[in-house]
Amino acid sequence: MDIESATQARECGVSGGWWGCLKALPEKSKSKFLNFTSNIKKKALDDPRRVTHSLKVGSALTLVSLLYFILPLYEIFGLHAIWAIFTVVFVFEFTVGAVISKFTNRGFATLLAGALGVEGVNLANCFGQTGKPFVLGTLVFVLAAGSTFSRFFPRIKARYDYGVVIFILTFSLVVVSGQRVEGIFYLAWQRLYDILIGGAICIVISLFVCPVWAGQDLHNLIASNIEKLANFLQGFECAYFECSEGKDNPDKSVLEGYKSVLNSKASEESLAIFASCEPGHGRFRLFHPWTHYVKIGALARQCSYKFETLDCYLTPEIHVSLEFKGKVQEPCKKLCWEASQALKALSSSIRTMTEPCDAKLHLENSKNAIQDLKIALETTSLEDEELIAIMPVFTVASILIETTKCVEKIHDSVSELSHLAHFRTVKSKVSVSTEKPHLLHRGTIKPVGESYGAGHVQSTVQDIDRLEICVRPNSDADG
Amino acid sequence: MDIESATQARECGVSGGWWGCLKALPEKSKSKFLNFTSNIKKKALDDPRRVTHSLKVGSALTLVSLLYFILPLYEIFGLHAIWAIFTVVFVFEFTVGAVISKFTNRGFATLLAGALGVEGVNLANCFGQTGKPFVLGTLVFVLAAGSTFSRFFPRIKARYDYGVVIFILTFSLVVVSGQRVEGIFYLAWQRLYDILIGGAICIVISLFVCPVWAGQDLHNLIASNIEKLANFLQGFECAYFECSEGKDNPDKSVLEGYKSVLNSKASEESLAIFASCEPGHGRFRLFHPWTHYVKIGALARQCSYKFETLDCYLTPEIHVSLEFKGKVQEPCKKLCWEASQALKALSSSIRTMTEPCDAKLHLENSKNAIQDLKIALETTSLEDEELIAIMPVFTVASILIETTKCVEKIHDSVSELSHLAHFRTVKSKVSVSTEKPHLLHRGTIKPVGESYGAGHVQSTVQDIDRLEICVRPNSDADG
Repeated sequence: MDIESATQARECGVSGGWWGCLKALPEKSKSKFLNFTSNIKKKALDDPRRVTHSLKVGSALTLVSLLYFILPLYEIFGLHAIWAIFTVVFVFEFTVGAVISKFTNRGFATLLAGALGVEGVNLANCFGQTGKPFVLGTLVFVLAAGSTFSRFFPRIKARYDYGVVIFILTFSLVVVSGQRVEGIFYLAWQRLYDILIGGAICIVISLFVCPVWAGQDLHNLIASNIEKLANFLQGFECAYFECSEGKDNPDKSVLEGYKSVLNSKASEESLAIFASCEPGHGRFRLFHPWTHYVKIGALARQCSYKFETLDCYLTPEIHVSLEFKGKVQEPCKKLCWEASQALKALSSSIRTMTEPCDAKLHLENSKNAIQDLKIALETTSLEDEELIAIMPVFTVASILIETTKCVEKIHDSVSELSHLAHFRTVKSKVSVSTEKPHLLHRGTIKPVGESYGAGHVQSTVQDIDRLEICVRPNSDADG
Repeated sequence: MDIESATQARECGVSGGWWGCLKALPEKSKSKFLNFTSNIKKKALDDPRRVTHSLKVGSALTLVSLLYFILPLYEIFGLHAIWAIFTVVFVFEFTVGAVISKFTNRGFATLLAGALGVEGVNLANCFGQTGKPFVLGTLVFVLAAGSTFSRFFPRIKARYDYGVVIFILTFSLVVVSGQRVEGIFYLAWQRLYDILIGGAICIVISLFVCPVWAGQDLHNLIASNIEKLANFLQGFECAYFECSEGKDNPDKSVLEGYKSVLNSKASEESLAIFASCEPGHGRFRLFHPWTHYVKIGALARQCSYKFETLDCYLTPEIHVSLEFKGKVQEPCKKLCWEASQALKALSSSIRTMTEPCDAKLHLENSKNAIQDLKIALETTSLEDEELIAIMPVFTVASILIETTKCVEKIHDSVSELSHLAHFRTVKSKVSVSTEKPHLLHRGTIKPVGESYGAGHVQSTVQDIDRLEICVRPNSDADG
């Protein structure tokens, strides 16, 4: 021990307590320790259900230990109670649906493999003591190889993978034990019995102690993903069109939030599978259309791929004609704003489980903005413009139009969900904008009379007339 | 049994054999059965390693069964040999890396939990028979809750999740058994010993019988993903620019192949983790830079997001000015072609583990194509063009330019990999195109003399001069 360490150790002893010891640690170790604890704290504060889940697993295992600790219970279950510990360790997952799914997988696989195993041993007994091991060995080989191959089928992998593993395990255990252990039927039965006890403890705790529902998580995940898309569009509008006017750039986290949507497929699909195993809870009845959320999630991901392309055009290196940008700025901003509001309304509609009426209206407004943009393009001239410098602006506008199509698909899908899941009907607070295109009042665009024909105005009004608004619009609404 | 079924049963008996029975089945069941068998056949033919893996698992389990079937072995291992069956069932994964990773996780976790458990039981013994269960229960609760919480950290989840589960299981088993079973140290040791035997069987079989290497899979996956991107670009060029000239649409599978790249993140990351556990094999040494493949994979995914946006513009509903499309067609086609060839060369460079010289040259050609495009845009006029009809063409061209930037990033990353993994140097077969832009010879574009300044030609030539070609180009090369 060097002098510094010795001094630190003495100091540690003098000041006493772990805080004193922490102070005496070298700077590097101290910062590592503090980093470690702040990481744990952050993880716990980000989602306090993680702490609750950990405590629930601890409690379930301690409860199962009682089978050993309390003598009368031990006399009933004996050493076989270890299967109950296995069940708790492997079955106790984060969400109720995952616990039920794993428990049913484990239970049915054990039942089936136990029954088959007992029959297999009975069959092998017919071949005498010499033939028995060969028959048992062949049975293990064939069943294990066949079951392992079945795990390559995506549908089996997604829903029954754990069950297949338990099937192979139980069958092998029962058949192999059948060679030496008498009362093989009793062994298989005991294993199933203890699995039922362990599983029951898991299900009761996960259902009744601060339950975490996969369905609720999926519901929130889809709503939050759609909201992230909305935030990006709002942030993009500000970053692309307004920053040149001297406004602050939007927060980076707002612009990058959508990136988590890009890779959310796996978690959405597994949550949907677990959700389908859950009983009705809160606002969700049994047989809630969970698979439909996966479809909405896929459409949201489609939208996020477009944003990934849009994001490229935020880099200042791309040379852009500011004059041309100014000409299309107003309808593009309106398009961004209305599409983002439509997405926010869709997210809110999912969250509150109400029909997406507001979203429909914002969507119509964004379609009007596309008309504005088309008019702006029809009435603008590109004399003295560098085509290469207007190309990025064209691209952004074009992708924004494609985004609106994508938002419309999300809207249709959420509407279908609202129908399937009987969402509540509410009064809309939004009005359809029937004002004449902003662009017509801008100096940069040619006035209506020159090249903006009456046919276009008519078509816009027709569009609004065609609106199938699910409730009567407010008195504020124009259309 | 109805008359039809009875007739079928009789026919089945008459014609004999399973084929006869199959013929006698009702049409619906027969088609279901045939569909089921063809599905299995397809799965097996798609990747015959799946069949080998299933047979390997069957063999490993049958081998472990010998511990029970052969009397002298049974006398040594006794009933504890079931742990070896557990090990084989849970540890035998598809790739060598996954087997080693799971085995080391299981081994170390059992060792650590066993040691801690034995110490825990010794500690509890100091509190007398009344205090012992409380101390043991508290230990189980604290360790299980703490370990479960650690599973929420992504790094632990990715690499050590199985280890943590086995740690909780073993610790609980040893500590809980410590309440009733004497010779707890022997129990922990026996468990570790049998795990070692089961694990050794798994590792030997997976290493020496038709081994499936995670590293090789990752290597092939990245190369094939880049090739899929190349195929899309080639297909897109044909579908977007050439079909109007009467050519056939490219195969749908070619245009949709890249979609599997969109969601390949999880499999790439897990393969990289498993690959890092593998010993040197084939062309890959120990400490091959596997994590670098994940970086290349992420860049390929970035590219695939752009393709997802490009894909929207293949729909015939989008109104496009054919005249303007004709004007930019040549450089865009060249851009598509060269970028796709660069990607193909990068894929081939990874596959053959040679330096990506050809890709560099194709990349330079695609940059020249961008210059061609810029010149084409500078020299074209948009009189009498509907801006709304040229917008999609602009968008496609702009995204193709962004794609080239993405391909350049992939190239840089593959070059870095080739440096880190000591790829072989080979002679390039490709030349840099120094021909004057195609467009200059087209009637639709103004000729060079009018608006295509000398500065641009100079910059293109400078670009080529700056080429850091890793080998001397062929005699065919112009630059």
